[in-house]
Amino acid sequence: MRNIISALVLNKAGVLARIAGMFAARGFNIDSLVVGRTEDTKLSRMTIVAIGDDKVLEQIRKQLDKVIDVVKICDFADMNYVERDLMLCRVHTPPEKRSEVVEVVNLFRGRVVDVARESLLIELSGPEQKMEAFVDLIRPYGISELARTGVLAMQRGAQAKRRRAAKP
Amino acid sequence: MRNIISALVLNKAGVLARIAGMFAARGFNIDSLVVGRTEDTKLSRMTIVAIGDDKVLEQIRKQLDKVIDVVKICDFADMNYVERDLMLCRVHTPPEKRSEVVEVVNLFRGRVVDVARESLLIELSGPEQKMEAFVDLIRPYGISELARTGVLAMQRGAQAKRRRAAKP
Repeated sequence: MRNIISALVLNKAGVLARIAGMFAARGFNIDSLVVGRTEDTKLSRMTIVAIGDDKVLEQIRKQLDKVIDVVKICDFADMNYVERDLMLCRVHTPPEKRSEVVEVVNLFRGRVVDVARESLLIELSGPEQKMEAFVDLIRPYGISELARTGVLAMQRGAQAKRRRAAKP
Repeated sequence: MRNIISALVLNKAGVLARIAGMFAARGFNIDSLVVGRTEDTKLSRMTIVAIGDDKVLEQIRKQLDKVIDVVKICDFADMNYVERDLMLCRVHTPPEKRSEVVEVVNLFRGRVVDVARESLLIELSGPEQKMEAFVDLIRPYGISELARTGVLAMQRGAQAKRRRAAKP
């Protein structure tokens, strides 16, 4: 089971090391871990995608709760949420294949951020499944470089489950 | 000075903990650190934005080089590169302000990913400066939540400096 947990942590040296060390020591299966800035310069938001059953997730939550630099934990398990991942991907594209590749990029609402004689550098963001569908379609052309950030998640609607939100 | 270093590392448990621990122990000033998947399931790509002079950066490079799980290091200092960061941001938007906010989002080529009665959830990707310009413009409306992934970078052109690439 794939689960997303996000934690607000203090933005200070050593916090990432402490949490990553804790995960490594316990052998948790972490699919992705992102730490980035928030609206408050004193806080960072860590988003963790963990694979495991309810027991493992409960353990991760408890272990995170013990770290004094963790301010707040949010588990997206029974929430309606938006997830996004960012990818940069260099695709082998000889001139005669360019329009084909660009068409796929447009269909996925991606962006071409750099053009070279024999390659395109593509930026794409979206949920996990979209990224994977894109990579599957583009792989036959030849992917020479690919980098992903890992998942960022946020709850839908203004204040949790009480308020209903519309998908635009 | 702000510098971007990327490292291909083995995709196994404990690598992030080791590298984050090394940075914390040495007290390096890391602005952002992203680890994500690559085209090869055995490798992850780590992108580090470090603040410091040439000496500090040289030290970071050397320290990374010592970690046996690091396969390859790339320093973007004298390269032509593309950088991207992803942000999810919830903005307080009463109905009468909605069109104003949506206009700003469109100008920045962002996307509205969720609509609630009093807020919009916005997705935006781009280089550092663009993100900051957007946040400055949107802050007066009231940002209730903001999360960023940190920077992902890739060299322009097909094979480094020899080949010239065009900005589309």
